[in-house]
Amino acid sequence: MAKTGISPTREEDYPGWYQQIVRSADLAENSPVRGCMVIKPWGYGIWENMQRALDKMFKDTGHENAYFPLFIPKSFLEKEAEHVEGFAKECAVVTHHRLEPGPDGGLIPAGKLEEPLIVRPTSETIIGFMFAKWIESYRDLPLKINQWCNVVRWEMRVRLFLRTAEFLWQEGHTAHATRDEALEETRLMLDVYATFAEEFMAMPVIKGEKTAGERFPGADMTLSIEAMMQDRKALQSGTSHFLGQNFSKAQEIKFQNSEGGESYAWTTSWGLSTRMIGALIMTHSDDDGLVLPPRLAPKHVVICPVIRNEEERPTVIEYCEALRREIAEVIYDGRPIEVFIDDSDKRGGEKKWFHIKRGVPIRLEVGPRDIKNDSVFVGRRDQPKSIGMPRSEFIATLVKTLDEMQQVLYDRALKLQTENTVQIDSFDEFKAFFKAKNKKKPEIHGGFAECYFVDCPETDEMLVPLKVTPRCIPFSPEKTQGTCIFTGKPTETRGIFAKSY
Amino acid sequence: MAKTGISPTREEDYPGWYQQIVRSADLAENSPVRGCMVIKPWGYGIWENMQRALDKMFKDTGHENAYFPLFIPKSFLEKEAEHVEGFAKECAVVTHHRLEPGPDGGLIPAGKLEEPLIVRPTSETIIGFMFAKWIESYRDLPLKINQWCNVVRWEMRVRLFLRTAEFLWQEGHTAHATRDEALEETRLMLDVYATFAEEFMAMPVIKGEKTAGERFPGADMTLSIEAMMQDRKALQSGTSHFLGQNFSKAQEIKFQNSEGGESYAWTTSWGLSTRMIGALIMTHSDDDGLVLPPRLAPKHVVICPVIRNEEERPTVIEYCEALRREIAEVIYDGRPIEVFIDDSDKRGGEKKWFHIKRGVPIRLEVGPRDIKNDSVFVGRRDQPKSIGMPRSEFIATLVKTLDEMQQVLYDRALKLQTENTVQIDSFDEFKAFFKAKNKKKPEIHGGFAECYFVDCPETDEMLVPLKVTPRCIPFSPEKTQGTCIFTGKPTETRGIFAKSY
Repeated sequence: MAKTGISPTREEDYPGWYQQIVRSADLAENSPVRGCMVIKPWGYGIWENMQRALDKMFKDTGHENAYFPLFIPKSFLEKEAEHVEGFAKECAVVTHHRLEPGPDGGLIPAGKLEEPLIVRPTSETIIGFMFAKWIESYRDLPLKINQWCNVVRWEMRVRLFLRTAEFLWQEGHTAHATRDEALEETRLMLDVYATFAEEFMAMPVIKGEKTAGERFPGADMTLSIEAMMQDRKALQSGTSHFLGQNFSKAQEIKFQNSEGGESYAWTTSWGLSTRMIGALIMTHSDDDGLVLPPRLAPKHVVICPVIRNEEERPTVIEYCEALRREIAEVIYDGRPIEVFIDDSDKRGGEKKWFHIKRGVPIRLEVGPRDIKNDSVFVGRRDQPKSIGMPRSEFIATLVKTLDEMQQVLYDRALKLQTENTVQIDSFDEFKAFFKAKNKKKPEIHGGFAECYFVDCPETDEMLVPLKVTPRCIPFSPEKTQGTCIFTGKPTETRGIFAKSY
Repeated sequence: MAKTGISPTREEDYPGWYQQIVRSADLAENSPVRGCMVIKPWGYGIWENMQRALDKMFKDTGHENAYFPLFIPKSFLEKEAEHVEGFAKECAVVTHHRLEPGPDGGLIPAGKLEEPLIVRPTSETIIGFMFAKWIESYRDLPLKINQWCNVVRWEMRVRLFLRTAEFLWQEGHTAHATRDEALEETRLMLDVYATFAEEFMAMPVIKGEKTAGERFPGADMTLSIEAMMQDRKALQSGTSHFLGQNFSKAQEIKFQNSEGGESYAWTTSWGLSTRMIGALIMTHSDDDGLVLPPRLAPKHVVICPVIRNEEERPTVIEYCEALRREIAEVIYDGRPIEVFIDDSDKRGGEKKWFHIKRGVPIRLEVGPRDIKNDSVFVGRRDQPKSIGMPRSEFIATLVKTLDEMQQVLYDRALKLQTENTVQIDSFDEFKAFFKAKNKKKPEIHGGFAECYFVDCPETDEMLVPLKVTPRCIPFSPEKTQGTCIFTGKPTETRGIFAKSY
């Protein structure tokens, strides 16, 4: 049996493997504050690259960034009934505004607030309040705002990146004069997320509409992109909500329309969070550690000097430094290649594994023999074997190599998704699909089941014992007639069902 | 009397003028959450540019970004006695983690936390806790981390950007093996702030050490940069703290030193916040509105088409669009010029003033006559009159023009600072300096007084009735002997004193 960098492997214990990937790549760890994580530099570097890519796409589609308060008055949350019901059970509540010495010497909360403040779980209500002030006439529309911030949704069971009480995200909020324009925005931003997922994360996704039971609290329609992880579970990877006039009526977001009358605005919201780092990990990583698509890697190339004795050191270091400068001049994806030298005193094998586990796309080993030949020994994270090549060839093909790696990762992930998406026509077949077939691989089974269904409570109830959820109703140009595999009713709706994160 | 864009003017009512600048440039506004502001797109765009510039400098000096929890357990804050004393009176305290229906139908806080959580006012204690876990040996040092985030320090009296309960900032936190290295880091980061202030904000600053009474709670030494606003008051514009071993002893940040023994680490922290937007406003803006140094302006050039009738429209718009593309290809400060067309239906004068008030560095007016001559009518925000010039000349000199404007703003601010900094040798002179000389200009008086003093409680007490504070003890290569103007004691210390924000 081949030795792997990560133990347990995906097959042995998928959740355990995930934890080890996060730990050995030094991406994040739990903090002493229940539910809150610490995102370490290597993990945060991925998030910064995600932010840069998304932020550009938001701006290119006419959105502007702004910043709204962290706190939401309780009464604001209560304005939209479904909305508050959706978030009341997981709110961090601020009740006091100072600490003062208590009877036993320690400090106790003091300065009780007249109205409790909620740490934002999402900002529809506070941003809606401001929109109502800002929007007077149709000339003020559309209003298209994005915010990068932290949000809090209280969680007891934490999984790094996937489920934490505090997380980082962006939330877009827009207001429009017409229903059609708001619907168009809702779809446009889903497309932006899908493009980001596929082109930057190298993660194929299925675009579709959420069922009624899975909608955002207060939305008329929620769209999502769904990705398949390597254990065949789905991970919702970005959502775009058409809020209709629900929030504008609750918050009086009105405007004078072009006919001189008064109308309620149509609003949307859409968000993508640090959860995506979890999706990235589970899409590409292998039993040796993290694998990063080059477009999101904090560093692209690490140079490891191979020094057998101190005499060699100056020559090797000098060569590596020159190589570093040469690589740093190569432009990849619009910016200089991120390259660094690891001259720590780790042993050769240890150093190599360190960077494999962190998912650095390209490792270069450079020793006296390579210098003599003006060559480099190249390890690609997507391939098992390292190979030697002339330095000039390495430099000349570097961008092509990174592009190729990005494509390889996408193709692998698409193959997994395609091979594990099945068309299912009966409930028995459906149940069998989601039953573990192999006791040795309890974590890896199922996949995406696509079938006819009717979106109704009866369907939802039949799914509960299977721990399967409707992921989305994929967009499809043609409607065909079929029979709901759950209720037996005639239907034109086909959905994707899966176990999910 | 000339008509000004902003009323009141600086002379008439400086705080009122400040409010009007913020409002008419659409930078920010108060929110319904007491003490919290909304940063609007134009204001947030300035912050994004500040972030980009600073972030690069932090990375160039070897720092990495990470993210730590929003919440700090009360017990953490209590570990460092001076620290908690400094922040206890202004803490937002989370005591519950959900809302549930109360007796009268509304929602009430429920799920009481065993230990209250404090919304971070600063993160020394939570980051220190993680540092203690991460640092084992001298090989793990130095550890140099930065965080971009929101913080909360409860405030009742709010002034947009200058004093708000929630604000955005960056906080750097580092740990070092030796005292000298930590001191060097403390000074290095002050230099980074000074470079940022002078080169990006076009704001001259005085670097120095804070007196004992003005130190960060828990620090052994606080360094700051101090800038003079146009009302001659000082604004502290970035602080860098040498924390000695105070936090490492309180939090057990220990490491195995190179001799095999155990040592406490030496730590630093340093921060700069959205308050800098207030400093930027008060340094450069005039009675017509916001003035922005080009390096931090969200947009550099606005093109205003001049259309007298609908027949002309296609020609003018087409010309403006071609001009926009041409300008967008010019590289300024490492990135393409930010240029946009304002084809809103505002009237000519109204449109011009709109952009003057927002501080867009360069306004171009383009009408049929200009098109015929292939020329543009150029308004520079730092000059009162617009001038016509050939389009080719405008393009060829654009970068030079922006560089020149940046310099003009710096020179103006430096002139103000120099002219209003005086050497003072007696307490009577000192009192006279800080007394309003002109009842018509109650807001504009005083300046920076530089004098010999002894840093002691007696000095501090004499300053209280004057509402003047010691701003800093400027770094100076040579020590000279003199007499404290407050206590009459001999001293080598010279300090800058001023009224301040």
